[in-house]
Amino acid sequence: MGLDEVEALASVRLMEAGATRLQAKPVARSIRLAERDGVRSHGFMYLPIYAEHLACGKVDGKAEPEMSRPRAAAVVVDAAHGFAHPAIDLGFPTLVEAARSSGIAAMTLRRSYNCGILGHHAERLAEAGMIGLCFTHAPASIAPAGAKLPVIGTNPFALAVPDEHGGARFVLDQSASVVAKSEVILRARRGESIPEGWALDARGNPTTDPDAALKGSMLPSGGAKGFGVGLLVEVLASVLSGAVASRDASPFSGPAGGPPATGQCFIAIDPAAYALGFTTRLAALAEAIEGQDGARLPGARRRAARERTSVEGVELDADLARRLGLR
Amino acid sequence: MGLDEVEALASVRLMEAGATRLQAKPVARSIRLAERDGVRSHGFMYLPIYAEHLACGKVDGKAEPEMSRPRAAAVVVDAAHGFAHPAIDLGFPTLVEAARSSGIAAMTLRRSYNCGILGHHAERLAEAGMIGLCFTHAPASIAPAGAKLPVIGTNPFALAVPDEHGGARFVLDQSASVVAKSEVILRARRGESIPEGWALDARGNPTTDPDAALKGSMLPSGGAKGFGVGLLVEVLASVLSGAVASRDASPFSGPAGGPPATGQCFIAIDPAAYALGFTTRLAALAEAIEGQDGARLPGARRRAARERTSVEGVELDADLARRLGLR
Repeated sequence: MGLDEVEALASVRLMEAGATRLQAKPVARSIRLAERDGVRSHGFMYLPIYAEHLACGKVDGKAEPEMSRPRAAAVVVDAAHGFAHPAIDLGFPTLVEAARSSGIAAMTLRRSYNCGILGHHAERLAEAGMIGLCFTHAPASIAPAGAKLPVIGTNPFALAVPDEHGGARFVLDQSASVVAKSEVILRARRGESIPEGWALDARGNPTTDPDAALKGSMLPSGGAKGFGVGLLVEVLASVLSGAVASRDASPFSGPAGGPPATGQCFIAIDPAAYALGFTTRLAALAEAIEGQDGARLPGARRRAARERTSVEGVELDADLARRLGLR
Repeated sequence: MGLDEVEALASVRLMEAGATRLQAKPVARSIRLAERDGVRSHGFMYLPIYAEHLACGKVDGKAEPEMSRPRAAAVVVDAAHGFAHPAIDLGFPTLVEAARSSGIAAMTLRRSYNCGILGHHAERLAEAGMIGLCFTHAPASIAPAGAKLPVIGTNPFALAVPDEHGGARFVLDQSASVVAKSEVILRARRGESIPEGWALDARGNPTTDPDAALKGSMLPSGGAKGFGVGLLVEVLASVLSGAVASRDASPFSGPAGGPPATGQCFIAIDPAAYALGFTTRLAALAEAIEGQDGARLPGARRRAARERTSVEGVELDADLARRLGLR
């Protein structure tokens, strides 16, 4: 299946599930980009969850996001319990214009939702010539070092840096946990155990039982330092934006709990405002990494998938095709 | 010894070593704050290194930093191969004013030097009511995952968040490596081995030999994700600022190699520009962490030391007192 077809099909299915064109189009595009980059979990596989959330009211398919600009370099968007993507589309042109004129600008979203692949939003800022630094939080799953109760979500951040050709030289996109929670859910479904070091049980003890892990907490990558990075994300995406706290957010999967009402924060920096020669220095840094045997730039795997799918298109397995109503 | 005495003594010794009053005062203050917070490595213990670097020309004790403001929210300071601290002092009032009027602002430093305890700079921004987000890089010591040659330094970031009383609710300050390089140097001097997981040798293999580690690389905290955080710091503190790359910087210890010419990046965000109720949400987040048995807020250890030294003052061991010319 070609990528245009992916996007068109996703758009139709989202509108059938109750989304307006305004809400459906940017989400359909995000599904295209996920399939393009080989991140299947955020491609067609997510479509049934989006449809379920439109049906149960976790996402308002008719929401109209609203933007304001309280200060010259501060952009605020109320996603109004719709998808995050149309709210981001609404705000990004103003964010980029503000960063260009002020040297740096930040945009926060509240009453928002899972924004999908964070790196793709950062990459858009890089395509506009900006350093894109993006933060999004999620329902709490990580406890502070030494404690039991989750306080922050897997809270990823993403960084994209512009090259001299209107693209991103590299895109970094990483969560605060050792592994994604979905890896634990997968093991639980299959009745398999999980490696030690992934999660704790509800008493705060190490566990290899995925069901016990899902009642406990995910371990942060690098211990207290991973929690620290996730805490930075929490401060910017939730506390600054005025979104709900991760520990009060409803789950991103399943119909329970009403709209998650989570938030995002996007910072755009115009390198030209600070010093000459940014792309030259950046190219040398990138070369110092990818020029070494065994090392690769962040996002290299997605980039390779992108080259592949742009030629070969996307292959759907029979089960997914059936669920999409294709055969 | 009282903290006023600490600061006065440090100031005198720096001026004796060739620093002007402009250069000596802010560094002496940083020594006071380090001793106050129990971070002895950046207190009096660093003074002989500062003096050596003034003597050999790694730091220009007569430098006059220069500030410009290329855009409304972009502040640029040339530290002119002097200490970082007077350059930061020069720029911070403008940075804070810019963040207040624009909602966010960033300040970069180039031709700079080790800025000491990064969290103290972040805390100053929080005391001005801003979220302070600070980045500083260092001579390369961490290789990318899977590779051998160091590309980035231990590259810390710091986050301080304002409370409602003109202080910081908490201060996060963490490097990208599993442990500080100074821990390895200490083991090497003592002829002790280091635990596996701290460092690699020059071939990229795990080592417990501190001398082999010092010829190799420090391991990033959390593997590739720790390198990712350090890479973010490299992009902002070095590439954006127009400073030298970490892999080209001269060491922060010893007289070799001329001025390090490293850089910093400081981002200030005015929470009031984005949503009401920041400090209330922040207080609830902090409580969700420190209210749990076994957990504590980032920076809690330094805060405890601060309370102690403000009553008891600072104790110097005989060797340090002798080196400071006190007995």
